[in-house]
Amino acid sequence: MILWKNLDTLQAYSKLLSLKGHVNLAEAMSGESGKERVAKYAVRMGGGLTYNYAAKAVDDEVLAALKELAEEAQLSAKYEALYNGEVINTGEKRLVLHQLTRGQLGSPVVADGVDKRAFYLSQQEKAAEFARGVHGKTITNETGEAFTTVVQIGIGGSDLGPRAMFLALENWAKENGCLKMNARFISNVDPDDAAAVLKSVDLPHTLFVLVSKSGTTLETLTNETFVRNVLKDAGLDPARHMVAVTSETSPIAKSSDYLAAFFMDDYIGGRYSSTSCVGGVILSLAFGPEVFARFLNGAAEEDKLATNPDPLKNAAMLDALIGVYERNVQGWPATAVLPYSQALSRFPAHLQQLDMESNGKSVNRFGEPVHYVTGPVIFGEPGTNGQHSFYQLLHQGTDIVPLQFMGFRRNQAGMDAEIQGSTSQKKLCANVAAQIMAFACGKKDADPNKNFEGGRPSSIIIGDQLTPEALGALLAHFENKVMFQGFLWNLNSFDQEGVQLGKVLAKRVLAHDTDDALRAYSDLLDI
Amino acid sequence: MILWKNLDTLQAYSKLLSLKGHVNLAEAMSGESGKERVAKYAVRMGGGLTYNYAAKAVDDEVLAALKELAEEAQLSAKYEALYNGEVINTGEKRLVLHQLTRGQLGSPVVADGVDKRAFYLSQQEKAAEFARGVHGKTITNETGEAFTTVVQIGIGGSDLGPRAMFLALENWAKENGCLKMNARFISNVDPDDAAAVLKSVDLPHTLFVLVSKSGTTLETLTNETFVRNVLKDAGLDPARHMVAVTSETSPIAKSSDYLAAFFMDDYIGGRYSSTSCVGGVILSLAFGPEVFARFLNGAAEEDKLATNPDPLKNAAMLDALIGVYERNVQGWPATAVLPYSQALSRFPAHLQQLDMESNGKSVNRFGEPVHYVTGPVIFGEPGTNGQHSFYQLLHQGTDIVPLQFMGFRRNQAGMDAEIQGSTSQKKLCANVAAQIMAFACGKKDADPNKNFEGGRPSSIIIGDQLTPEALGALLAHFENKVMFQGFLWNLNSFDQEGVQLGKVLAKRVLAHDTDDALRAYSDLLDI
Repeated sequence: MILWKNLDTLQAYSKLLSLKGHVNLAEAMSGESGKERVAKYAVRMGGGLTYNYAAKAVDDEVLAALKELAEEAQLSAKYEALYNGEVINTGEKRLVLHQLTRGQLGSPVVADGVDKRAFYLSQQEKAAEFARGVHGKTITNETGEAFTTVVQIGIGGSDLGPRAMFLALENWAKENGCLKMNARFISNVDPDDAAAVLKSVDLPHTLFVLVSKSGTTLETLTNETFVRNVLKDAGLDPARHMVAVTSETSPIAKSSDYLAAFFMDDYIGGRYSSTSCVGGVILSLAFGPEVFARFLNGAAEEDKLATNPDPLKNAAMLDALIGVYERNVQGWPATAVLPYSQALSRFPAHLQQLDMESNGKSVNRFGEPVHYVTGPVIFGEPGTNGQHSFYQLLHQGTDIVPLQFMGFRRNQAGMDAEIQGSTSQKKLCANVAAQIMAFACGKKDADPNKNFEGGRPSSIIIGDQLTPEALGALLAHFENKVMFQGFLWNLNSFDQEGVQLGKVLAKRVLAHDTDDALRAYSDLLDI
Repeated sequence: MILWKNLDTLQAYSKLLSLKGHVNLAEAMSGESGKERVAKYAVRMGGGLTYNYAAKAVDDEVLAALKELAEEAQLSAKYEALYNGEVINTGEKRLVLHQLTRGQLGSPVVADGVDKRAFYLSQQEKAAEFARGVHGKTITNETGEAFTTVVQIGIGGSDLGPRAMFLALENWAKENGCLKMNARFISNVDPDDAAAVLKSVDLPHTLFVLVSKSGTTLETLTNETFVRNVLKDAGLDPARHMVAVTSETSPIAKSSDYLAAFFMDDYIGGRYSSTSCVGGVILSLAFGPEVFARFLNGAAEEDKLATNPDPLKNAAMLDALIGVYERNVQGWPATAVLPYSQALSRFPAHLQQLDMESNGKSVNRFGEPVHYVTGPVIFGEPGTNGQHSFYQLLHQGTDIVPLQFMGFRRNQAGMDAEIQGSTSQKKLCANVAAQIMAFACGKKDADPNKNFEGGRPSSIIIGDQLTPEALGALLAHFENKVMFQGFLWNLNSFDQEGVQLGKVLAKRVLAHDTDDALRAYSDLLDI
C-alpha cells in the first residue's frame, strides 16, 4: 500500500541529515580513490548514455542511506502507480500519462472509456501521415506548392520543449540528410516576437502549428490572430496554412479554421508534452516521422530503466536522491545545467521550466504546508561559453552550486578542424573533464585570490553522440528525476496554481478594473 | 581619503542587519499606501528610463540606513577614483576605464603615456570609418563585391554583450531603415557552433570580426582557424575577410592576416567591453556608426547620473544597495532578470556574466577571505515566456527570489494586432504590471494550493521604447550596479582568477599529462 508522507517524517531522512558534510570530495576525487570512483560510480542510461556521479559528494554510506530513503518513500511503487493510471495529479484530479506517449510500461490504462496508449499512438500516426503528406506534396498550399517551413505558435510547455528538441537535432538532421523543413517558433505576446519571425519566413510556403491544450491560452490565441491577419494581408488563406494541436474538448478542436487537428489530453502536462503531438507534429514535419520515432524509442528505453527499484541501477532515481541530499541536507539552493554541446543551447531553458514549475511549491500533495525547502533554482548555458561567463562564481563564489554536466564524444556536424594538435571536439571534451576535476579538487595557492577550495560537486551524462535516441533518453531522464523528487518532497509535481494569479490580474488591468498600485503601474506603462 | 573596508566592519551594516524583515511588503503595496509608493519610489535614469522600486521591501527607514551605508562605504568617492584612473583592479594592478569609452566623467586619464579617452575615441572613429567604407563599398571582398553579413568570433565578454546588444536593436534597426548588415556570432569551441553559422551565411560576402584582447584565447583562435580553413576551401582569401579587435601588444595586432585591426587595452575587462570596439566594430557595421554613437550617449548619460552621491537620486547605487540588503540581510541567494521585451532575449545571459563573474568571489580586494555572502546567482528569460515556465517557483516556491523587471510602453516593430479589445503590446505591459502586484501582495485563498503569500519583492525599469539610447543606459545601469556592489562587498570586481584552473587542466588533458581521475574522465570521453 502506498503511503504519501512528507520527507521530514521519514526515518531514512533523519539518518541522511546526520550525514551532512560526510564526504570530503576533494580528497575522495584525488589519486587512486578518484580513479576508482570514476569507474565505479556510473549507471547505464537509455540511448547509449551513462550517468557518472563520481564527482558528487557521496560515498557508499551516503548511497546506502539514499537507498533506504528511496525504499521508505516508495519511489518505485509510486512510479508504478503513475504509469498504471492512478490519479497522481491530486490538485487537478488527473492521471499523469506522458510516458504512455512513448511506450506501455504497465497494464493498459483506460480513461474516459479509451485505451490511452492506443489514443496517443493514433495521434502520433496521424501526425506522421500528415508529415508524409506535406513532404510528399499531397498536402500543399493554395496554389499546390510545397510547404518548406513550419512555425509553431505556443508558449511555455508548447514552446520550450519542442524548441529545445528541434535545436538539438537540427544540425544532426542536416548532416544526415533528413532536415525536411525549417522550423521556427513564436511564443511571446510581445508583438516584436511574431513580427520578427513572420518577416524572416517565406509566408506562402509556411505552415503554422497552433498549440494550446485548452484552446484558451491568451498569448497563443493573440499570436494566432496576429499570424492570421498577416496571412490575409498577404492574400493567403489562413485555413490552408494552419493546423491545431489541442485537446478534443477545446473550442478549436473541430474548427474549420485549420487544415488538420491533432489531439492530446488533460493527462499530459505542458512541460511533459514534448513526446506527445505537441512536439510530435513539428518534429515529424521538420525531421520526418522516423526520426521522431527514434526520439520516442530513446525516451521509452530510459522510462523502462527508471522502473528499477535499486537507485544504484536507476540513473533518474539516483540523480533525484542526490539532488534532495544536496538541497535539503547540504542546503544548496540552486543547480546549474551545463551541456557541452551547442545543440543543447536551449535544453537548460526547458529543464528550468520542467523542474521549477513542477517542484517550486510550498504545500504537499494534500495542500498542507511543508517545512523543508523544495525545488531549487535551475539555470545554465552551454559549455565552453559558460566557462567564460558565470563559472567564476561557481568556482570561487561564497555559495556552492551543484552542477549537472553533459558531454558527447563526437559532434554532430561532419566539420571539425585540428588546431594545435587537437580537434575542436577534443578541446570541448577536454574542457568538461577539466572542469569536473577543478570543481571537485580545487587547487591550493598561497595567493588566496588564486586559491580554489574545491569540494564543488558535479555529475556528468556522457554519450557517444547527440542522436535522436540519446536526446529522447536525456529528456526522459530529467522528467523522471523531477517526478522522483516530487515524490520525495511529497508534492504534486503536475499542477501549476502559481501561474494563475498573474493571469487574473492582467485581465483586470486590461479591463481597467483596478484602483490601487496596479492602476498606478498601468498608468506608468500607458495601458 | 578612501578606506577599503569589509562590509561587516561598517557601522551602517550592523544597523541594516537589525532591519531584517522590517517591511511587510504585501501591506505596504496595498490600497492607498501602494499607490503612493509607486509615485514616490522612483528615480530617473538615462535614455528616458525610470527605475521604480515601489515593490521592493524597503521603506523610508530602510532607505535611510542604505544611505548611511552608501556614505560610510564611500561609494561615490570610489566611483570617482575609478573614473579618474586609480588602480581599482588590485589583482591585476590595472585601471578600470570602460566608462571612458563613452564619455569623460572626471579629469583626463593618462596611462602608458596616452590620454585614454582620446585613445578610445580614436579607435571608435576608426571603426566608424571602416564601417562607412564597408557600407559605401570602398571596402569590399576580393572581387569588389559588398559585404552583407558580419560574423563575430569571440567568447565570454567578446560574445555575450555584443550579441545581446545586436539582438536588442536588430528589429528596431529594421523598422528604422538602418539595418545595414546581418550579424551572426561564433563562440563555442564545439565545432557544431561554427559549422552551423558558416553553413547559414553567404561566405563570399561575409566579413569576420575576430575578438580577443590577449590574442591567445584558445576557443577563439580555434574558431578563427576553423573559419580560415573554410574560407580557403571556398577559394576565398581569409585576409580579405577578417578584421581583428585586440590589444596593441597582442600577437595578432600587427598581423597582415587581417584587413584591419582595432584596439582596446587591459583597462577594459571583457564583460565591460560592449561600448569599446569589442562591441563597436560589429554594431557600427550592423547598424551604422550613428546608431552606435546614440547607444554610447545613453550609457554616458547613465554614467553621469551614477555620480550622484545620494542613492535616492542614483538608480544604479540604489539598486546595488537594495541588492545587498536582500542578499546579506534578508538572505536571498538568487536574483531573476525579467525583461518584458523579446528584443532583450539575451540580455539576462549578458547580465549573468557581468554580475556573477564580477562579484562571485570569496576574498576581498586584498586577497583576504570575507565572512559574508557576495554575488548571487543571476538568471532570467523574457516575459511573458517566463510566466509560463519558472514563475511557478517564483510565486509559490520555498525560497524568495528578488526580481528585476523591465518594460517599455511601445514595441519596436511597426506591427501589432488588436485582439479582444487590446493590442499585443498592451497585453505585454498588463502582464508585467500584474506580475509585480501578484508577487508583492499575493492573494489569500482557503485552498492552500491556490494561496499566494506575496511578500516577493521586485523593481522595474520602465522606458518608452527600447531605443539605442535606452539600451545604452540599461547596460551602464547594470555595470554601475555591479561596481557599487563590489565596493560594498569590498571585492575586486574586475579580475576573474576563478576561470584559470579549468584552462590549465584542459591543457593537461590535451597533452595527455594526467594520471588520476582526470585521466579516467578523459578515457570515458575518448580524448
